[in-house]
Amino acid sequence: MANSRSGETLTERLVRILDTFGTDRTVQTTAEIGRRANLPSSTAHRMVTELVECGLLERDDDQRVRLGIRLWELALRGSRTLRLRQVALPFMERVQARIREHTQLAVIDNDETLFIERLSHPQAGANITRIAGRLPLHASSSGLVLLAHSPVEVRERILTGPLRAMSPSTETDPERLHHLLAGFRRDGLVVAPGTVEAVSTGVAVPVRQGRGEVVAALSVILPVDTPTGSAVEELRFAAAGISAALGNQRG
Amino acid sequence: MANSRSGETLTERLVRILDTFGTDRTVQTTAEIGRRANLPSSTAHRMVTELVECGLLERDDDQRVRLGIRLWELALRGSRTLRLRQVALPFMERVQARIREHTQLAVIDNDETLFIERLSHPQAGANITRIAGRLPLHASSSGLVLLAHSPVEVRERILTGPLRAMSPSTETDPERLHHLLAGFRRDGLVVAPGTVEAVSTGVAVPVRQGRGEVVAALSVILPVDTPTGSAVEELRFAAAGISAALGNQRG
Repeated sequence: MANSRSGETLTERLVRILDTFGTDRTVQTTAEIGRRANLPSSTAHRMVTELVECGLLERDDDQRVRLGIRLWELALRGSRTLRLRQVALPFMERVQARIREHTQLAVIDNDETLFIERLSHPQAGANITRIAGRLPLHASSSGLVLLAHSPVEVRERILTGPLRAMSPSTETDPERLHHLLAGFRRDGLVVAPGTVEAVSTGVAVPVRQGRGEVVAALSVILPVDTPTGSAVEELRFAAAGISAALGNQRG
Repeated sequence: MANSRSGETLTERLVRILDTFGTDRTVQTTAEIGRRANLPSSTAHRMVTELVECGLLERDDDQRVRLGIRLWELALRGSRTLRLRQVALPFMERVQARIREHTQLAVIDNDETLFIERLSHPQAGANITRIAGRLPLHASSSGLVLLAHSPVEVRERILTGPLRAMSPSTETDPERLHHLLAGFRRDGLVVAPGTVEAVSTGVAVPVRQGRGEVVAALSVILPVDTPTGSAVEELRFAAAGISAALGNQRG
């Protein structure tokens, strides 16, 4: 696509517009979108109108703008994420039916943990994560599983980068983290009490593509003082089932 | 965005590129994308490169192209669909745990039924629908619920348009369909044996936003000879729960 005067591609501007929407901001005016995407007002109006015409955005009766259901459809229909999640969901439901807290599926993307599915009991304890939400790799049990099994260059990049503490229990010392990761790989398990929030413990296991590479982390979030034994057992059983199911398909 | 020489906007071309991906086609070469999107080869290469740079598409080691996880994230994070589905999922799980076939959530979009969630038992019977898949409004139990409760101008548009038979049992006579829809509104229920596939019966109920408008259809798909009583009971209970939960939030 043609570049704008600022040298930015129109695709980049499109991404910036979509990026102004979020879990806590599903409706905006065109002026708000333009301001948050840092676009000139006339550009924002022109682009929003065009995106509405294509169904990627929708306008309600008050002229406020939302993400279009067509965008959701295009993004999901052909996505590997949907396939992974479809394979994993029956196994996640079994975990959720027995543990009755939060059951989550996460993948690594762009050096971060991206949560692609979550089942939550209505009375379950605290949990900061959301579907399509992100956390630093070193901070949550899911991220630690993914980091432990990531290529050595990813691990080095993360361990030499800034390691932000999400809570007083987040491990931010690169050397200690390095040793912890080796243990996580050996055990095929992460138990992380209080590393994201003081009130909860994350328990996560790797999910492999068949017997191959780790493609996801499966986790449960428990109140911090809960015994983790049955969660570990359920997670391992479910992860083995997902891995076997994934092993039978490619693409 | 600037128009191309063909008078088409670049957003339209972007949508056409994304539209070449689907459930059965998650990986393509750039040449295949260009051919299916009907774009000149140089345009296809330039746009795919730009979309890869922004993360909306991803290239694998063999230079084949997939939908990017960033697209999935942007599309989901701020979507109403995600919120509706999040509210509905615990209730759907209860239905699924008891009926153990297929439990589905659908909305109306662009005069079609769009399925936004589906839970399936591994040994469940036939079911043509997929998440992010579409069916004509008059053909499935979910679509008939949505059509029955849609504004009169939508109903007239559908009933005067072409009504394709999905199976020998699909009702395609406008006058009979008109009477059926009145009954569905009165009963708050559709039982549709064999209208999509001869081997299955769809049972669907409306889901309201609080006590207001119908925003979705909740359905189960049963083998065609199964009694529908307990499915109806479970669906009504779940729909009432979802409606109450939706009534407490706006946006």
